[in-house]
Amino acid sequence: MSLDAALAARLKRTADGLVPAVVQQHDTGEVLMLGWMDDEALQRTLTTGRATYWSRSRSEYWVKGDTSGHVQWVKEVRLDCDGDTLLVKVDQEGAACHTGDRTCFDADRLL
Amino acid sequence: MSLDAALAARLKRTADGLVPAVVQQHDTGEVLMLGWMDDEALQRTLTTGRATYWSRSRSEYWVKGDTSGHVQWVKEVRLDCDGDTLLVKVDQEGAACHTGDRTCFDADRLL
Repeated sequence: MSLDAALAARLKRTADGLVPAVVQQHDTGEVLMLGWMDDEALQRTLTTGRATYWSRSRSEYWVKGDTSGHVQWVKEVRLDCDGDTLLVKVDQEGAACHTGDRTCFDADRLL
Repeated sequence: MSLDAALAARLKRTADGLVPAVVQQHDTGEVLMLGWMDDEALQRTLTTGRATYWSRSRSEYWVKGDTSGHVQWVKEVRLDCDGDTLLVKVDQEGAACHTGDRTCFDADRLL
């Protein structure tokens, strides 16, 4: 099943056909990571309950946790006012970051 | 003054030379918006205390609040594990969204 046509028409994509997805822990408000979704990844995220991204480096769909076990259970999905950014609220099992950190922003504070 | 060379070397930019910046209210954890920064916008954000973006639609720097009065005072800036996303924690005066909503994600819940 493909993404609802009315929703697809509202998305503003990058030249690569992607929309950035800000991923936030639903209860603590931690920003966990930023992923990228095409229409298919968004459709899967909306319908399977598992956050699913398009991996720009591997050029494949990536169901968060399938390899690491660090599953993201989808609680809420929002589209921003311009239709060009998604906010995905999840329940993150374990570490969101491939480094083992809870979030991808833990290690490197610039200011 | 330009961006520190060691920091500039760590940034991974889109084809447009930009890095997405997730903007979060520092105390409540609300995700307010997503902006885009080039090296100069990041340098200004780090040194002026005012969140500054590159407007892709207007092709100009955009100091949040200069027109609207809805200033973002920068509290913290972080770079993610891949060097391709910034997290900017701010104290947002008034509405972050040009629609008057507190955040750009208030209006449109998909799930």
